[in-house]
Amino acid sequence: MQTTMEAAEQSKKPSSVESQGNAVEISLQTALSSGNLEAFRKAVVNTLERRLFYKPSFEIYKGVAGLYDLGAPGFLVELNIINFWRKFFVREENMAEVRCASLTPEAVLKASGHVDKFTDPMVNDVITGECHRADHLLKDYCEKKLEKDHSGEEADELKNVLAVLEDLSIEDLGKKIKEYGITAPVTKNPLSDLYPFNLMFQTSIGPAGLIPGYMRPETAQGIFVNFKDYYYDNGKKLPLAVAQTGLVFRNEISPRQGLLRTREFMLAEIEHFVDPDNKSHPKFPDVAKLEILMFPREEQTSGQAAKKLVLGEAVVKGTVNSETLGYFIGRVYLFLTRLGIDKERLRFRQHLANEMAHYAADCWDAEIECSYGWKECVGIADRSAYDLYAHSEKSRVALVAEVKLAELKEVEKIVITPVKRELGLAFKGDQKKVVEALEAMSEQEAMEMKATLDSKGEMEFEVCTLGRNVSIKKNMVSITKKMTKEHVRVFTPSVIEPSFGIGRIMYCLYEHKFSTRPSKAGDEQLNVYRFDPLLAPYKCMVFPLVQNQQFEEAAKFISKELKSFDMSHKIDITGTSIGKRYAKSDEFGAPFAITVDSETSVTIRERDSKDQVRVNVKEAASVVSSVVEGKMTWQDVWASFPHHSSAASDE
Amino acid sequence: MQTTMEAAEQSKKPSSVESQGNAVEISLQTALSSGNLEAFRKAVVNTLERRLFYKPSFEIYKGVAGLYDLGAPGFLVELNIINFWRKFFVREENMAEVRCASLTPEAVLKASGHVDKFTDPMVNDVITGECHRADHLLKDYCEKKLEKDHSGEEADELKNVLAVLEDLSIEDLGKKIKEYGITAPVTKNPLSDLYPFNLMFQTSIGPAGLIPGYMRPETAQGIFVNFKDYYYDNGKKLPLAVAQTGLVFRNEISPRQGLLRTREFMLAEIEHFVDPDNKSHPKFPDVAKLEILMFPREEQTSGQAAKKLVLGEAVVKGTVNSETLGYFIGRVYLFLTRLGIDKERLRFRQHLANEMAHYAADCWDAEIECSYGWKECVGIADRSAYDLYAHSEKSRVALVAEVKLAELKEVEKIVITPVKRELGLAFKGDQKKVVEALEAMSEQEAMEMKATLDSKGEMEFEVCTLGRNVSIKKNMVSITKKMTKEHVRVFTPSVIEPSFGIGRIMYCLYEHKFSTRPSKAGDEQLNVYRFDPLLAPYKCMVFPLVQNQQFEEAAKFISKELKSFDMSHKIDITGTSIGKRYAKSDEFGAPFAITVDSETSVTIRERDSKDQVRVNVKEAASVVSSVVEGKMTWQDVWASFPHHSSAASDE
Repeated sequence: MQTTMEAAEQSKKPSSVESQGNAVEISLQTALSSGNLEAFRKAVVNTLERRLFYKPSFEIYKGVAGLYDLGAPGFLVELNIINFWRKFFVREENMAEVRCASLTPEAVLKASGHVDKFTDPMVNDVITGECHRADHLLKDYCEKKLEKDHSGEEADELKNVLAVLEDLSIEDLGKKIKEYGITAPVTKNPLSDLYPFNLMFQTSIGPAGLIPGYMRPETAQGIFVNFKDYYYDNGKKLPLAVAQTGLVFRNEISPRQGLLRTREFMLAEIEHFVDPDNKSHPKFPDVAKLEILMFPREEQTSGQAAKKLVLGEAVVKGTVNSETLGYFIGRVYLFLTRLGIDKERLRFRQHLANEMAHYAADCWDAEIECSYGWKECVGIADRSAYDLYAHSEKSRVALVAEVKLAELKEVEKIVITPVKRELGLAFKGDQKKVVEALEAMSEQEAMEMKATLDSKGEMEFEVCTLGRNVSIKKNMVSITKKMTKEHVRVFTPSVIEPSFGIGRIMYCLYEHKFSTRPSKAGDEQLNVYRFDPLLAPYKCMVFPLVQNQQFEEAAKFISKELKSFDMSHKIDITGTSIGKRYAKSDEFGAPFAITVDSETSVTIRERDSKDQVRVNVKEAASVVSSVVEGKMTWQDVWASFPHHSSAASDE
Repeated sequence: MQTTMEAAEQSKKPSSVESQGNAVEISLQTALSSGNLEAFRKAVVNTLERRLFYKPSFEIYKGVAGLYDLGAPGFLVELNIINFWRKFFVREENMAEVRCASLTPEAVLKASGHVDKFTDPMVNDVITGECHRADHLLKDYCEKKLEKDHSGEEADELKNVLAVLEDLSIEDLGKKIKEYGITAPVTKNPLSDLYPFNLMFQTSIGPAGLIPGYMRPETAQGIFVNFKDYYYDNGKKLPLAVAQTGLVFRNEISPRQGLLRTREFMLAEIEHFVDPDNKSHPKFPDVAKLEILMFPREEQTSGQAAKKLVLGEAVVKGTVNSETLGYFIGRVYLFLTRLGIDKERLRFRQHLANEMAHYAADCWDAEIECSYGWKECVGIADRSAYDLYAHSEKSRVALVAEVKLAELKEVEKIVITPVKRELGLAFKGDQKKVVEALEAMSEQEAMEMKATLDSKGEMEFEVCTLGRNVSIKKNMVSITKKMTKEHVRVFTPSVIEPSFGIGRIMYCLYEHKFSTRPSKAGDEQLNVYRFDPLLAPYKCMVFPLVQNQQFEEAAKFISKELKSFDMSHKIDITGTSIGKRYAKSDEFGAPFAITVDSETSVTIRERDSKDQVRVNVKEAASVVSSVVEGKMTWQDVWASFPHHSSAASDE
């Protein structure tokens, strides 16, 4: 059985370094300007996979598309992002972070609309049965055609299709595919009619198989159904923000673009509940002066480019529909750029009117430019009262808030009075549940019931807690309008939701932080991730120069010290040359590398400048820790310690 | 729709405080000695649910058994446990922490044995169809009978059944249920025959529904299938430890005992791979002197009690089968007691010979005593080479390690020589994959093939990479034995696995840390969680004494300072009495409460002593932070600051 393993090991050798032997420096910048995106992406992905940032899952069983494992460095990067998210959003704003179940019974996702509408348009290869996403096929067709012929009437039509692609109905999408005679990729076989495919992973909960369920496709619903508890816990005050991170599951038809479209991914969501009549934010002034690349609706439809806007002005002018939405746009901008996203490759694009969910009041996507184009990484949506209202209606539990009014206010109210005697005769032991369901009707439902009972004398009525419909007769309930004086206003809160795709942010950070630079000899290009210490999986690598006990003891001492400072690090005791170890350290994006070359002192090398200083063994960890934590800069270190010039062989 | 909400709010009032009005102090200690376990458990659970440590999921839709949501304090407790686990195990031992996919294709769980063997014995109520776990019914039956009659021949028989319950085969379990005439609980209907029910949640991956898959029932398999990558990344050296935390999913037949048996739970697992010929551990001396309550196999079978053993002696005497297993027992002991588990209620129970998985070399469970009895919270198993071997065999990818031998060693080797000409004629383009599969056979498989080909001339052979069987003829492969000199020893590593049920540990901590104490007036019992600062969800509560702008400004200032020290805290601006707010603070288990009662100075109250000191507003956060981080003790604070004696109304 050795053969397989040896073959695998050979394939593990840092091949990308050699394959880039042409000594041309590569970065996202050079890739975008040269158009050589494939080579750049290959260099990034090869490095990530070789260093186990991530890898396809279950490879020894040939794997499954769209599933990836994070190895140690990738896991630490994800953890750094999530920990910073917690500090920057959750703790800063005193949000409640929760963890709701991911197995979800059907009733919840029926109410939220996911069972009926969380679909992608699918077509099959009629010969092989292979599944394809219809909109992707249409997009690929248009783009390929346009590559060949970019002007003329046909080209204009194709450009138009691309522009409205996301808004096409199932019918229109199907018509276009037929009209263009699009066939299956690779096989060129004809395609089936188009149909909606639900993206949720279905399962069944409980041994009897009677409770249909799904793996959650987003974390938000778990929060919505608990709104009442969070509201009460917050002293019945709004605004109220609840946060959640966790895995979500979507059965993508054709996963592609690596980490950008996977079937299981980490989401970090904030549900910020507000009074729909007051979406101001006390901390908006903190972000109002930010100048941000924005792409409002009008600029998109009139063919203009994204442009820099001052956030405060965008809110005042109504481009962004509320201070709270604007506040989160500003905070997301600060969050992403602090992690290392290039601010010139970050824009906030407003959803077009017909692209937006019908209930959303306004929606902006933080899009990051990478080799695959501008990719949505954070969605910031004002979902209005849609979700709470939908769950109130289906569960018949009121998910509402209330505010005291300064003075009594006369309002017309619907009064629902169940006639208990009649209900008792009709429903016996179930009477109580029927009464509760009647009393929990919304005003609109009650008025509809009144109209039906007045005209037909009887109607079917769903009692959720009984799990069945009952027949309500006119004599069982009295529904009247009455003028009353209210001292509270009861309303369904709006929710503003920033939703972060952690995997996408992570992948874009990899692309933004990757570049190559020539080796000392100049004959090859070496990979380097220029991660900020905040993001770097290892703040520091530690190498004993040669394998001997004294050096290894010193390395262990430094490791222990680094642990006491909570500095994530890695010891490399492979006997390879120091140059190779620095190259490896750069591929991990470690800001610093400590080489133990004597019993008493060591060198510290800074990744970006490749400069080295010599410090005492006892000081090494604290120097690294001080720079990582921002207590001093590398310039301070450079000014304070003797410089070490590396031998030619070092790099 | 207000009615429902108002009713819900009323039910939210801290009812347990009143219901304990009898002024008897409650703790796990008093509950165990009085036998009044139900009342204790109710007090614990009421407090946890009222303060949103956790709650049943999807309650507005009547929920689903076995699913729970963590609210803000519960989430923080879980996070504190996991963060401490990372520090104590992962970083301390330089383990690689990874995150593997939770959606798992069937092939992986077929190889691991889960598809065939991860079952519980189930019976149905033949009238209602309701499902029951057969072993639970038998257990309940025996225990109830024994409660009535504890001696005599029948009692002895029942006691014996309870002792061997976990080892009973499906057949024997079925026989006992028939023999005792056990019927369905509640309905008393007859029961169906018994059958195995697989506990995994099944789903299907990909749009065509062709890839059967499951939600992972443990995290370990994701690590095993990637062993080769981790081994290479570790410089091909053992030992090698890979850690993973994450949700796992088990479709329990009848979830019960709240957080102890749920359908979705957080697991933290370590897979420590070692050379089976060398299970020593260099850091074992660090734990060898620990005296730990242990319950070896012999003590259990001979009816003795668990006893304190010195860990080093237990390893020397062979009670624990290796230093590495012993090292993890010691580390788990230190981990749990540091979190706050009472060391007198923690024991390590060895699996009985027939209770252990057939492949396991030795297995010890860390069991924690709570109101439900002694519960397995951490399993520490030497799983031998079973898992890696099973995946090697099924995937035909060698999951092995190798060590250089000091001197060349003559060994008999099986040489497999595929005859490429014949294979090419037979399999054309598939030849390469057939050749690779033949070369990847284990020695045993090769010898079996040789025997079959010698006798029958031909055999079916599974080529995993082709996804089908092919027919191999005698002339297609030559299999011979040869004496060769080897310079490496190739072997399948053993894996030692500590597996932590985070939810169970968390629940036991709640019970160990819960107690009541009389209110100042002595007329009621107040709940308090005496969490160590390490575990406490909020290190500190902050209360402005009355609602005015100056006090709220001071509270905001303190909150900002606490954030800068990374001290999790909660501001309570409800206008309730300070006594009620202290009671709430105690129910959250906050070690400290800061009351802002002037613009310049505040009081800090310590939870357990209820002592209060007065400090300057500017110092408050740093004093709390110093005690939480262990830089000073409360005694130091008490000695350094003026004491504040609370008014009678305060508590």
